[in-house]
Amino acid sequence: MPSTDKPVKPAKDTALTAKQLAAKQQEISVTEFFEKNKQILGFDSRQKSLIMGVKEAVDNSLDACEEAGYLPDIIVRVGRGEDEDEYIVYIEDNGPGIVHKMIPNVFGRLLYGSRFHALRQSRGQQGIGISATIMFGNINTGKPALVMSKTTDADGVAWRMRIAVDTKTNRPVVTGDEAFIWEGKEHGTGVEYATKGRYVTGRQSIFEYLKETAIVNPHARIEFHDPEGKVYLFERATEQLPPRSKEIKPHPEGMEIGDLMRYAADTGHKNVKAFLKNDFSRVTDRIADEILSTAGVKPTARPDKLTREDLREIIKAIGTVRIMAPPTDCLSPIGETLIKKGLMHILDGLRPEYYATPVTRAPKTVNGNPFIIEAGIVYGGEIPSDGQVQILRFANRVPLLYQHGACVMTKAIAEVDWRRYGLEQRGGKGIPYGPAIILVHIASTKVPFTSEGKEAVASFDEIQSEVNLALRLCARNLKSHLNKMERKSKTHAKFRIVQEILPDLANKSAEMLGRPVPDLSRTISGIMNVVWIEPSVEKPAKNTRVLRYGIYNYTTQPRSVRLHAHLPKDCVNLTLFSNPYFVEMNEDGKATWEVAGLQPSTDTELVFELKGDMADTFDADDIYISGINPMMVMGAEALPGDWGIKGLEIVESEDDYVRDEPEEEIAAEEDLGDE
Amino acid sequence: MPSTDKPVKPAKDTALTAKQLAAKQQEISVTEFFEKNKQILGFDSRQKSLIMGVKEAVDNSLDACEEAGYLPDIIVRVGRGEDEDEYIVYIEDNGPGIVHKMIPNVFGRLLYGSRFHALRQSRGQQGIGISATIMFGNINTGKPALVMSKTTDADGVAWRMRIAVDTKTNRPVVTGDEAFIWEGKEHGTGVEYATKGRYVTGRQSIFEYLKETAIVNPHARIEFHDPEGKVYLFERATEQLPPRSKEIKPHPEGMEIGDLMRYAADTGHKNVKAFLKNDFSRVTDRIADEILSTAGVKPTARPDKLTREDLREIIKAIGTVRIMAPPTDCLSPIGETLIKKGLMHILDGLRPEYYATPVTRAPKTVNGNPFIIEAGIVYGGEIPSDGQVQILRFANRVPLLYQHGACVMTKAIAEVDWRRYGLEQRGGKGIPYGPAIILVHIASTKVPFTSEGKEAVASFDEIQSEVNLALRLCARNLKSHLNKMERKSKTHAKFRIVQEILPDLANKSAEMLGRPVPDLSRTISGIMNVVWIEPSVEKPAKNTRVLRYGIYNYTTQPRSVRLHAHLPKDCVNLTLFSNPYFVEMNEDGKATWEVAGLQPSTDTELVFELKGDMADTFDADDIYISGINPMMVMGAEALPGDWGIKGLEIVESEDDYVRDEPEEEIAAEEDLGDE
Repeated sequence: MPSTDKPVKPAKDTALTAKQLAAKQQEISVTEFFEKNKQILGFDSRQKSLIMGVKEAVDNSLDACEEAGYLPDIIVRVGRGEDEDEYIVYIEDNGPGIVHKMIPNVFGRLLYGSRFHALRQSRGQQGIGISATIMFGNINTGKPALVMSKTTDADGVAWRMRIAVDTKTNRPVVTGDEAFIWEGKEHGTGVEYATKGRYVTGRQSIFEYLKETAIVNPHARIEFHDPEGKVYLFERATEQLPPRSKEIKPHPEGMEIGDLMRYAADTGHKNVKAFLKNDFSRVTDRIADEILSTAGVKPTARPDKLTREDLREIIKAIGTVRIMAPPTDCLSPIGETLIKKGLMHILDGLRPEYYATPVTRAPKTVNGNPFIIEAGIVYGGEIPSDGQVQILRFANRVPLLYQHGACVMTKAIAEVDWRRYGLEQRGGKGIPYGPAIILVHIASTKVPFTSEGKEAVASFDEIQSEVNLALRLCARNLKSHLNKMERKSKTHAKFRIVQEILPDLANKSAEMLGRPVPDLSRTISGIMNVVWIEPSVEKPAKNTRVLRYGIYNYTTQPRSVRLHAHLPKDCVNLTLFSNPYFVEMNEDGKATWEVAGLQPSTDTELVFELKGDMADTFDADDIYISGINPMMVMGAEALPGDWGIKGLEIVESEDDYVRDEPEEEIAAEEDLGDE
Repeated sequence: MPSTDKPVKPAKDTALTAKQLAAKQQEISVTEFFEKNKQILGFDSRQKSLIMGVKEAVDNSLDACEEAGYLPDIIVRVGRGEDEDEYIVYIEDNGPGIVHKMIPNVFGRLLYGSRFHALRQSRGQQGIGISATIMFGNINTGKPALVMSKTTDADGVAWRMRIAVDTKTNRPVVTGDEAFIWEGKEHGTGVEYATKGRYVTGRQSIFEYLKETAIVNPHARIEFHDPEGKVYLFERATEQLPPRSKEIKPHPEGMEIGDLMRYAADTGHKNVKAFLKNDFSRVTDRIADEILSTAGVKPTARPDKLTREDLREIIKAIGTVRIMAPPTDCLSPIGETLIKKGLMHILDGLRPEYYATPVTRAPKTVNGNPFIIEAGIVYGGEIPSDGQVQILRFANRVPLLYQHGACVMTKAIAEVDWRRYGLEQRGGKGIPYGPAIILVHIASTKVPFTSEGKEAVASFDEIQSEVNLALRLCARNLKSHLNKMERKSKTHAKFRIVQEILPDLANKSAEMLGRPVPDLSRTISGIMNVVWIEPSVEKPAKNTRVLRYGIYNYTTQPRSVRLHAHLPKDCVNLTLFSNPYFVEMNEDGKATWEVAGLQPSTDTELVFELKGDMADTFDADDIYISGINPMMVMGAEALPGDWGIKGLEIVESEDDYVRDEPEEEIAAEEDLGDE
């Protein structure tokens, strides 16, 4: 080791020796730490504190309800306190309740919880949020929180107690612990606390947070009482609980040698092969053998006796053996239909022109943690068109309202060239402009937030490129809609001219020549030369939609065409299957119809009904065609290449079917994106 | 309390009851928490981990040296380890050393340290950085760190030991603890650890971090050995240790009732008046009385017997009583001269055209914590001009390399309209373009970082507006330089024409007419009508500069002018005071000269010498004038309004002195900024 032997100056009178410094060295409790670093938890202003507290409590309530299999019923009330800047916040749920003796730690101790050690998707994972909320409330009002809870297995008795957090020791201080009868309540938890705050409305507000929560949690009912006493209700859009995410074992990929050391020391298994097979996910008998033979470690070796060298070789071997990606039932994405349903349910007041089909990507992993990216775009109508698009960011179904500049989702949005998809963007970089709302959701067993405040997702390349891809797939659908609308309006204009002027001319000529008026239909068809598909939708009842597609052959030959649509399959009924043109529907709900030999200048109609919760999520415009040159069809786009089912090939003699451009663009952009 | 009495659905087979959930509730150790949330500490990639580790160790070393009053001498060595992606990192300092029994906790336990509870500026405050570095090294290599330390008060014995962090319990695990003789080392600490990493060069690298550290710590000597064995040395630019920041008591402003409760419970004082007076800063006898009478609390009341109501009234009263801002000797800003010196020392290779006079703002407070903002701008020369300006962000003299998008400093830079100050900027918003480097430094007792990784400063309005103001004051100096250069070059061109063509014409005319050549000096003066000030500088020796100002009266009347310059006052000597034009110098080093009645078409010279470390930080161009219409002077700008000393008023009959525009602009912009 080198040394610095430069002569040093004697310390000044204020300077400290090692001994004096040692006297100052001491433990810092995690509560003291966060008390002094409020901004890390997102409690850096009165305004934010008020929102953060509600958020932490509601996140916990939703998690608890889902874990217990109850459709969440949440009440949020924000009332005024004794001082001008004091608020009384109350959040109640219908979750399973909390066992009496656990209540103090859950609400009065930081870094304490049930979800941290479990590898599955949940909102709260840190065990910090609600106890920090209560701690800050204590600090700024001097008042403890009131917690009440009733479980189903406590003979109808509910408990309530006052809880404060001792910031020096990070332990709960409980007063007034008592049993009580909670009238009319079967089970659930309520928490009431006083806190200094500033109540605001607008883009970063409790209302906005709850509204966005309702979008991605369409199975929840949320009732909000604001400080003026006004009540807002976000009704459930579906009775369907999201499938409960399953807990998984750690995946060997991305594991560090120190992790492996600890697992090996803690395992109950007697030999290393059984240890690898049973304590990790995706390690089969064969894979365990392969890892151990590559590592040169005997399968019978005792896990707790492995040397650092053995473990190092095992880690290396894991890097060379092909192991299946982690199972993904630990994740519970929202799903394409429910994203659309949620958006429609909450944003309907804006009367958007189009909800692009949302995208749910296949799972990927980052540092061994599986994640899924979902995206949606809402366009037009009364969405403001004069500024940047609105971005809705979500992580494990929780809205992220702050720190958008630090979030990988924002970065991914800014790197897409939105000009290709019909939105304005200066220089093809940055947040686009126009009448659109962009939704991005990450679902993961471990969302890598940039801080405990859970306001922004850290920039991992794996996540950024998935968000980018999801956005572009969704944007492609928007672009195809915009293209269709443009072509349609142009052809409409042409039609009007041809159908008004030609007959006029014919009439005038016939009159002048004293001849009969000729039949112009073939002439018009010859000029138009399109198969026209005209969708329309009727709403005879709340959850019922009748879809009608008029198909007009404005060409001079008989035409055949296949039609394809992705239907919400829970909503289809006999009217679909009994339609004479119906061919088939796969298990995803992708249906096919075929109209064969439609004569020139004739038309027909395809009609079916959708009935159910999700009936309104199907957009009549989302119809695709195959078996015909798409350039010849107005009102439907060619079946996309990634549709998953094969369309009919074109048998006619016209120009070859030219695949839509965007497909190749995406491939090309993807190559760029990977660099 | 309301209740939700909606009938609930029975739980599904995977659903959990409150009892089952309770079984999962448990404590989470802070080490486990950070192990799973590496990105919060900034250890989210192999590349960043390597830099973060060096940063944490060097920050600690600099703090320790300064606290003990030693000029820091730091050695950083990054070597290759046994695997391709393994590195061996070694950092050594000449600090006071660490007392033997404290070593394990300092290096092997998170949230343990000496600086967290002290209200004074220091780099490390969390007690997380170095122990987390060692923990991640343990986890990814399985190897403990080696720590060695020698204190001056241990009879020449040094100690070394191997330390690992037990991530389950957050406690150090020590092996091989032994005394040894550290040859040639008087005192200091060395730490060596193995870690997985990726060594890179460029904008986010260990080299860049050390380079930027050298800029804002010109009193430190840093030696860096890279993995190829190359050695880089950042020599000390000054032998001046920064004044040691003093510890202060908490300031009453911004205090929460919970804080006051705890202080009151813990105080040793027997009555509330003595408690307020002695336990807080800036509370005088009179202020304590005022607070207590406003609050209606008896001064003799026992602090630990105060009710919540009493405390609440005291907190309210504190909000109404005027209390002096916290003392600022707890802060140690770099200072204008040393910022310039540091920048010149490290950036000289780029031969910048101009170092704008740095700005050190007066202290402000945010949440009761005092802070100071400093800014500097370097312009031109070989600084790349084709992209965005380079931004150097610092907090308590530590460079911030990551998360610039999330940092309030970046936001403040982006909100300045740089087009007013001579830099390109699209639409007057965003990071400007051009050949410039912008430095921003925040010094505070508690820098509000957005996360424990200390990569970005949270967005507090108070900080943002101070950064904004510091930048604009500094930018105004840059703009004044650019204006001067432009006017100078234009006038130079005019001069050349007048001085070459007029004599030519005169010669030719005289020749043709057979007359003598007329004296043109008065004619030329009449045309030019300026007082020309021509600065030049000689460097006769390393720390010596001779400044010369040629003053030419190219007008048709006698002229008087006062000259003003802000000199590094430690560098002035007799040559300054003995100069016949010298008038006075104040304690800041702001000097004034007066040249009276300089006759038309004559000139004179002002000469003085600067000698010392900081002699080169004075830019000959930074000379200001008063007592004359500045429109009539070439080579010096009017004395700025915020200069602090009064210039001479203009006595001549010319147009009134028109104050420079930027001053008012800043005031106007400030108004906007406050909204």
